[in-house]
Amino acid sequence: MRPTAILGIGQTHIGEQWDKSLREIGGDAAFAAMQDAGVETVDALFVGNMLSSTVSQQSQLGAFFSDWIGLWGQEAVKVEAACASGAAALRSALIAVAAGEIDSALVIGVEKMTDKIGRDVASALAAASDADYELDQGISFVGLNALIMRRYMHEFGWEHKDFAPFAINAHANAMHNPFARLHEEVTLEQFERSAMVAAPINLLDASPIGDGAAAVVVVPAEKVAAAANKPKVVIAGSAAATDTIAIHSRRDPLFLSAAYASSKRAYEMAGISPDDVDIFELHDAFTIMAALALEACGFAERGQGVRLGLDGRISPTGDRPICARGGLKARGHPVGATGVYQIVELVQQLRGECGATQVEDARIGMAQNIGGSGATIFTHILRVER
Amino acid sequence: MRPTAILGIGQTHIGEQWDKSLREIGGDAAFAAMQDAGVETVDALFVGNMLSSTVSQQSQLGAFFSDWIGLWGQEAVKVEAACASGAAALRSALIAVAAGEIDSALVIGVEKMTDKIGRDVASALAAASDADYELDQGISFVGLNALIMRRYMHEFGWEHKDFAPFAINAHANAMHNPFARLHEEVTLEQFERSAMVAAPINLLDASPIGDGAAAVVVVPAEKVAAAANKPKVVIAGSAAATDTIAIHSRRDPLFLSAAYASSKRAYEMAGISPDDVDIFELHDAFTIMAALALEACGFAERGQGVRLGLDGRISPTGDRPICARGGLKARGHPVGATGVYQIVELVQQLRGECGATQVEDARIGMAQNIGGSGATIFTHILRVER
Repeated sequence: MRPTAILGIGQTHIGEQWDKSLREIGGDAAFAAMQDAGVETVDALFVGNMLSSTVSQQSQLGAFFSDWIGLWGQEAVKVEAACASGAAALRSALIAVAAGEIDSALVIGVEKMTDKIGRDVASALAAASDADYELDQGISFVGLNALIMRRYMHEFGWEHKDFAPFAINAHANAMHNPFARLHEEVTLEQFERSAMVAAPINLLDASPIGDGAAAVVVVPAEKVAAAANKPKVVIAGSAAATDTIAIHSRRDPLFLSAAYASSKRAYEMAGISPDDVDIFELHDAFTIMAALALEACGFAERGQGVRLGLDGRISPTGDRPICARGGLKARGHPVGATGVYQIVELVQQLRGECGATQVEDARIGMAQNIGGSGATIFTHILRVER
Repeated sequence: MRPTAILGIGQTHIGEQWDKSLREIGGDAAFAAMQDAGVETVDALFVGNMLSSTVSQQSQLGAFFSDWIGLWGQEAVKVEAACASGAAALRSALIAVAAGEIDSALVIGVEKMTDKIGRDVASALAAASDADYELDQGISFVGLNALIMRRYMHEFGWEHKDFAPFAINAHANAMHNPFARLHEEVTLEQFERSAMVAAPINLLDASPIGDGAAAVVVVPAEKVAAAANKPKVVIAGSAAATDTIAIHSRRDPLFLSAAYASSKRAYEMAGISPDDVDIFELHDAFTIMAALALEACGFAERGQGVRLGLDGRISPTGDRPICARGGLKARGHPVGATGVYQIVELVQQLRGECGATQVEDARIGMAQNIGGSGATIFTHILRVER
């Protein structure tokens, strides 16, 4: 397979975009990415989305957006892996480009969640768990993550407040991201006093949903060298893995085996080790997932993920920066779009465009997008070539 | 890209499988395909499905089936393009195998439609149209196809009964397919007297939904030569194209431009012309779609697709056989599974396993899977090498 690169990026603000339809939101990000890439068309479109069939009663988003964007006739599909749909669409796109089947691909991650015309969002999101053996027993998706967090605290002796640095870092970084859902700093006191959602997960452990879209243009790496007047960002690693869909089926529910497997393969493909990663955009849907991802990807020992936050290492000026544009926690989590937002944000970091939250001399970025309670996990590694 | 082949096939009966869950239906087809292929695992899983999020409240079918089948840890995603989801999953799989990213892929097309736990099926299926500009105006998916059929009859001077041969052929062929939804022959008189659904489409113009799954194992073509004790079936052509999602946006709503474009590319890739196709499994969701597909793919002049039926050319013993296992009309249309059923049935034909409906000396088969009212269309060409 030939190497691939990200030629252009685009994104919309994440929030309650009641003045815009699903197609307008996705289109806005797509047009921005194509403009950034300097292209007027692409060979194929890959859309990452989880909820449109249920919440907006709109399926086949491939043809839907191909039509709206003006890619008439071009190949287009939707790829879905719950909250990992964005990264799933990226991976499908880069494989098709790497294979030589197409020479350019547009990837849109898009979600419209805040003004339903179909089923309510909490019910639609619950489809990410096991309908027969989890959902039907009455547990919500937050509840499943709460079980994991409670067990983690019990096993390794952490208190709830030890997770606060993940939220505090995310909110601080989002202050400098104009596209972020939340623009308010939070303190340890606020974290501890925040309203309970599903014990021990409170409001500040959990990421907010939102309407939003992000997009990237993927091309063969050799095409970028010739044309670009901005740093070239290549996709150095890409891998996916799965775990059991129900958490009760796992040998160890505190180990994200699909994060371990996909990051291991991505490291090998990129020829790097965890220490080489300058910035890690992880999937902090809940603070517990940040801790587990850091452990599974080789940045912390088992049960010690929270330590990185407590030791002040995860900020943009630390030695292990995560969620430098706000993460899911504060940038927001428009579920099927999140994986593409992570890629857009890594490209911004690798291009050196992040101002106050720029990670100094960032050369290698990693993004990890998680579907369900760790059931489907994609890991991508980007490298800048100047 | 390296050539790919179908190593194994599997399918379930299509019907009201109230005694089986979504995972059991998909698993049954998957296990059958892996057994036929003689493999115990695969590198990756691609699931084609349209409705599970809405009807069964189950998303991320990639991890869901990977878990159930025992492919723990393997990469897995769902690909969706409304009723073309099955072929969309196949195309994603074969590109990944052709690229060398993986060495084997399992493709499952699966749908459970007859015992909902979520939204009703007619409403869920309507998501294949344009939610803003078609569905919200109150027209059903059948209604959209009825508009096309009415216009076709007006433009080209056909009567309703002229479409009867498509239904009669499909039902006659399904008599010999043990997996088919409907096992009853129909006559011209029954066709004319059948209950109206959305004029001029009556019950015998329309395909029945159902629960069912089909699966195939895709591997590099060179792997099959070494191992197989059955005819080798290679994927000689694969292409996809889109059209506007709303039919009112089309320059000519009676021309399936995405069928034309994707079949043209598939012919080029396979190095053949329409005349070389021995058996064509087309997407006869409604009889009008059979006529339009025959025209767009080069088997009939514009407005003359119905002529092939009236002239007796579409039966397995005719010179232009279609839907030789029953087509969508009588085999049934478990929407996201249909595209994989078509591939399974072509492989059966190319292996010479079809008994009474075997197309003599079938060497090249073509399958076409349509999403929405012609918005997303995939065309695949298979060739047997003995």
